[in-house]
Amino acid sequence: MDLKKFLADYVTYQSVSSDFTLENGMAGARKYLIGFFNDLAIEAREVKFGKHAAIFAKTAQKSDKPTILVYGHYDVQPADDVELWTSDPFILTEKDGRWYARGASDNKGCHSAVLVAIHDLMTTKRELPVNLKFILEGEEEIGSCSMPQFLRSMKDELTADFALVVDTCSLDKGNIVITTGLRGIVGCEVKLKGQDHDLHSGYGGCLLNPIGALVDLCSVLHTTEGLVNVPGFYDEVAPPYDWEREQMKHLPMLNDELKESLGIKHFKLPHGDFSAAETIRFLPTLEFNGIRGGFQGTGIKTIIPSYASVKISCRLVPNQNAEKIKNLLAETITNLCPKEMALEIKFEQTSNPYLFDAHDDKNEMLSRATKIAEDGIKSTFGNPPLYLREGGSIGLVSMLKEILGIDSLLIGLSTAKDNIHAPDESVEIAMLERGRNFFREFFSKF
Amino acid sequence: MDLKKFLADYVTYQSVSSDFTLENGMAGARKYLIGFFNDLAIEAREVKFGKHAAIFAKTAQKSDKPTILVYGHYDVQPADDVELWTSDPFILTEKDGRWYARGASDNKGCHSAVLVAIHDLMTTKRELPVNLKFILEGEEEIGSCSMPQFLRSMKDELTADFALVVDTCSLDKGNIVITTGLRGIVGCEVKLKGQDHDLHSGYGGCLLNPIGALVDLCSVLHTTEGLVNVPGFYDEVAPPYDWEREQMKHLPMLNDELKESLGIKHFKLPHGDFSAAETIRFLPTLEFNGIRGGFQGTGIKTIIPSYASVKISCRLVPNQNAEKIKNLLAETITNLCPKEMALEIKFEQTSNPYLFDAHDDKNEMLSRATKIAEDGIKSTFGNPPLYLREGGSIGLVSMLKEILGIDSLLIGLSTAKDNIHAPDESVEIAMLERGRNFFREFFSKF
Repeated sequence: MDLKKFLADYVTYQSVSSDFTLENGMAGARKYLIGFFNDLAIEAREVKFGKHAAIFAKTAQKSDKPTILVYGHYDVQPADDVELWTSDPFILTEKDGRWYARGASDNKGCHSAVLVAIHDLMTTKRELPVNLKFILEGEEEIGSCSMPQFLRSMKDELTADFALVVDTCSLDKGNIVITTGLRGIVGCEVKLKGQDHDLHSGYGGCLLNPIGALVDLCSVLHTTEGLVNVPGFYDEVAPPYDWEREQMKHLPMLNDELKESLGIKHFKLPHGDFSAAETIRFLPTLEFNGIRGGFQGTGIKTIIPSYASVKISCRLVPNQNAEKIKNLLAETITNLCPKEMALEIKFEQTSNPYLFDAHDDKNEMLSRATKIAEDGIKSTFGNPPLYLREGGSIGLVSMLKEILGIDSLLIGLSTAKDNIHAPDESVEIAMLERGRNFFREFFSKF
Repeated sequence: MDLKKFLADYVTYQSVSSDFTLENGMAGARKYLIGFFNDLAIEAREVKFGKHAAIFAKTAQKSDKPTILVYGHYDVQPADDVELWTSDPFILTEKDGRWYARGASDNKGCHSAVLVAIHDLMTTKRELPVNLKFILEGEEEIGSCSMPQFLRSMKDELTADFALVVDTCSLDKGNIVITTGLRGIVGCEVKLKGQDHDLHSGYGGCLLNPIGALVDLCSVLHTTEGLVNVPGFYDEVAPPYDWEREQMKHLPMLNDELKESLGIKHFKLPHGDFSAAETIRFLPTLEFNGIRGGFQGTGIKTIIPSYASVKISCRLVPNQNAEKIKNLLAETITNLCPKEMALEIKFEQTSNPYLFDAHDDKNEMLSRATKIAEDGIKSTFGNPPLYLREGGSIGLVSMLKEILGIDSLLIGLSTAKDNIHAPDESVEIAMLERGRNFFREFFSKF
């Protein structure tokens, strides 16, 4: 099967989950995937709990074989601003050893490498040494909102020894990362309300300004060094394993490169003995994602606004618990709120941090899979994998663990160069071809 | 002349200066005013430097008479939300001793009392004992932006002994306020810029968040007590005159009433020995009028924004100087800006505070006018006037002083009950009728 042709056809479906005018693109991508599975006599169907159905598929299951649950998502980010693309975002275009298209990397390209590898195996070998199940989601780019319901409702069908998630980043085609941890998240919106209406600022001086109250409150949420100033926030933070800090030494990205890729001149590192790359991976944060209050137009309007609000999200690390941090945060903010203000806190998003110890053999099958992956990565990509955490969150991975008790093996084929979510998204062809070869070997080694 | 009929016709012109679809209403109001002046054989013309012409008019000027420059504005605030009005905002409606209409109080009603009084005098007496000049502005509700140019360009024609401004508030129809001071203003927008683009908050922890930097900076601009924490800010603040604090004792509004009218439960008074009503009038402020940064939609978007900005305005009191405060503010903010952020400060609006000492006889004609007004207010409204400052700013009054060297006598016919700038704007009929009688007496006493 030709990987390029498979992906080229796949990207023509404009499966933008956030754009309801592109519903046909979503349906087309689902039909394309079901066609792929049916050609291999793999049972596949659409399962819908939210806005867009997920594809659930499974090979014939034998009880004496290990079962792997493969996860990917067929929905993509919008292609706006289309003017900024060098080529049509929905036509696969080859240039300088890369394929350009929306979804070429995130995530159509990456899971295509897995699907084509499976096609290779099933059309050449009589029987796979593993049972496979597939979730190809259609709502990843809009928050995976119906995934918890999907996982709970499908619990009996989704039993597996581990999940294989191909939606993370590696450094480059010679340095593959097995992601061992993801930060969790707690998000909320905090609103301070003073008087009912905006007041003319001619009354200023005798009453507390809600923006003033909010900046004071927000300012106290960090120490001057930049540590999160929520009592108890760091209590459960587990130090990284020794092998994790050891791995960090093999990370070839230098500080200057990281600064450049973030577009900043200075790091702000509150944890003295942790580098920037370590801070992102091993330590929790409290970030302000948005703030708003009062007059938003051009020029000056001399009002004292009636309210002001801020959006906050915390990234959490093992062994912080999202629910506990949520309570600490609510308590701290409540205590900081001055008596002149009415307080509203609305929590929006929570997921627990995830950590998988590649060197722990409690999950025997996952340890075996990791060993197989390690060997395969070394032989196919040229170097042994790096075992690193990521600073971001993949809610699904925590959900798989919490709802189904399933750990995930996260192998990344995307890189920072892929411009995912941005114009001119692309993927290195060699990365996907090596990925295909690697996964073919990986599945056959069980 | 019938005051009700004059005002009823006047308010039918929808002279909303901020709404360009209502240009006809602006032109209609100008034509109406010019017709009024021409009927009295007063020379009147439109003078346009900005978006909407002002009316300039003058009686025949005799060198042996004092000259009074009468100021008012014919433009009004928008009537939105029209649904919230009990009656048509552009039809004068009488109810419970009040006239309801947009502009019934601010400012058509108030200057109509003056105009009708002049009509009374000029149609019954052979000659006025004063020279009158008139500025009826069409841009007051959009910032009087072209007034400085108007005053500079018309300087030779605008000579006067003092200005009579009827655009302030009194307590009620028994308690008229002669406003003796207005706060000045310095407004600016401060922007802190971090990296070029919004970053995924998965990178959080190793860099300074622009919202975090902004709330820290803003938080330092006040002490915990609420004093403005800009070094040198209070240096030039003059204490109120003894007679001013004495006057405050006659202010019948109690603290609870003031709280209720502001819609607050608690005052926040940083200057221990000043009451809320005194704080508004005698002390300067630094207020946040608007703040913005990062994600503004619903829900959570986990970004570290590239910038955040805040709109700040300071109200100034004698003898603070707007230019000096502007420099202190810029210097303080610059010093507080962390090295990780690029800083932009844009100043938008400045005017100096204004104070007129009613008990100072340096301006002989104004002292005489004040004495005449005091007597007239006592006989017409029942009590002697209160001499009070206002917390707001009327840029025009500072401009008249700075550009033309002309002091203003500010006599208010509006009250807090008039709902100016809001739905169901109204004015007490007895207030305007008394005003008309008062001004007839006032002009004839010179």
